[in-house]
Amino acid sequence: MTLTFVGLGLWDEKDITLRGIEAVRNADVVYAEFYTSRLSTSVERLERVLGKEIRVLERKHLEEESRRLVEEAKEKNIVVLVAGDPMIATTHSSIMVEAKARGVEVEIVHNASIVSAIAGVTGLHIYRFGKIATVSYPYGNVVSRTPLDVIKQNLSINAHTLLLLDLNPEPMTIGYAVELLERVDDGTLDHFAVGVARVGGDSVTICDKFYRLKHHDFGDPLHSIVFLAKTIHITEYEFLREFANAPEELYEIVE
Amino acid sequence: MTLTFVGLGLWDEKDITLRGIEAVRNADVVYAEFYTSRLSTSVERLERVLGKEIRVLERKHLEEESRRLVEEAKEKNIVVLVAGDPMIATTHSSIMVEAKARGVEVEIVHNASIVSAIAGVTGLHIYRFGKIATVSYPYGNVVSRTPLDVIKQNLSINAHTLLLLDLNPEPMTIGYAVELLERVDDGTLDHFAVGVARVGGDSVTICDKFYRLKHHDFGDPLHSIVFLAKTIHITEYEFLREFANAPEELYEIVE
Repeated sequence: MTLTFVGLGLWDEKDITLRGIEAVRNADVVYAEFYTSRLSTSVERLERVLGKEIRVLERKHLEEESRRLVEEAKEKNIVVLVAGDPMIATTHSSIMVEAKARGVEVEIVHNASIVSAIAGVTGLHIYRFGKIATVSYPYGNVVSRTPLDVIKQNLSINAHTLLLLDLNPEPMTIGYAVELLERVDDGTLDHFAVGVARVGGDSVTICDKFYRLKHHDFGDPLHSIVFLAKTIHITEYEFLREFANAPEELYEIVE
Repeated sequence: MTLTFVGLGLWDEKDITLRGIEAVRNADVVYAEFYTSRLSTSVERLERVLGKEIRVLERKHLEEESRRLVEEAKEKNIVVLVAGDPMIATTHSSIMVEAKARGVEVEIVHNASIVSAIAGVTGLHIYRFGKIATVSYPYGNVVSRTPLDVIKQNLSINAHTLLLLDLNPEPMTIGYAVELLERVDDGTLDHFAVGVARVGGDSVTICDKFYRLKHHDFGDPLHSIVFLAKTIHITEYEFLREFANAPEELYEIVE
């Protein structure tokens, strides 16, 4: 029997692939987990499109009970539905290692992820992106400096930085993320960035100085930010001007 | 009317999404282009699944005749099918700018791309990847040093490098890419890498020293390579050992 991770893509129940639907049809039990990424649809709408009951996994089910999932996949065809591309979360690759060790076959049905879609939405060249960082909620009162460090590393090789925003306990907004990072800033953040909301749906894209992003209304989640490289290509500039309301001063960093 | 770019995902005609099928059903004319990325299926099989005639665009159609496509989209609903995620190719974002300037609405139906799927196939953490580079065929006798420069930049921030291999005039093999880069090497390439073939299909993943990848048989295209960061995480090591036949000496670079 098989443990299959099926990506649901970026937006709603229409983003599943024919391959994903086939996997669900062949499944004995269908789970879904929405803490590593989220969709703008409901479990009920997914059940209607897929014609199967879906059991929603809590965080502990995947992390603590991954052994149980793998054991269950010895006897049954198990599908786990995940928003985006299922293998972006390292939790899932750990389960694959566990499954392999126990002789359970694992399959992946890939789908769109913010990691690749961000290039299309911002017009930024995919090969100019550096490392990705996540902006997390403060732990106690401590704001993690990691995103700032990653931005600096990427600036050192003139690369853009995709900043993913924490989803738990609730999806973080661009405004909140900007305020958090300003608390650990050392002058690095006085530069341009692009805020994006609802990629794959009714997306909004706004380019401005990083600290000014908090004054724009991006609407509902999910939100992400791209902190721009030191310089940008002329075609990146043209796209941001047409589609992201970029200020004229952005032209100063065209290489 | 609308110009819609529809991603076809990584492997064959089953990787289109329900949203993509809906866009095709609403289209007056359906084009496809396969020079920026390719699928392991035929136009005939795609036509059968989609129930529409497909006209294949040559390179010049998109680059030189993008104006004609945009003009046609003023009168008709046009769909352009593209393997992978349609917006990874910068050609397509240029057409979006052109369309916006001429008052034509553009939509994107995202799909899986090697850029995000590579993490699932290799078990490497997505946030540890740096810039992407393409290994191109020699121009005359000159081998581009760009991929080597990008690898060095990424090593300087301890990041993995995804190397995409040129598709034109024919998809480049891992063995050929290794031999090309060895011709410009200055000692940088004596390190570990992961070769992957046919991601999203019957994929093969092998981890070894970079120069030894040319001795492995990866079978049919498409091929890609990930040049590893200076150090890797223990869970990355475990995945590569289980799924990519990594040599024991890889343990030396676990941080």
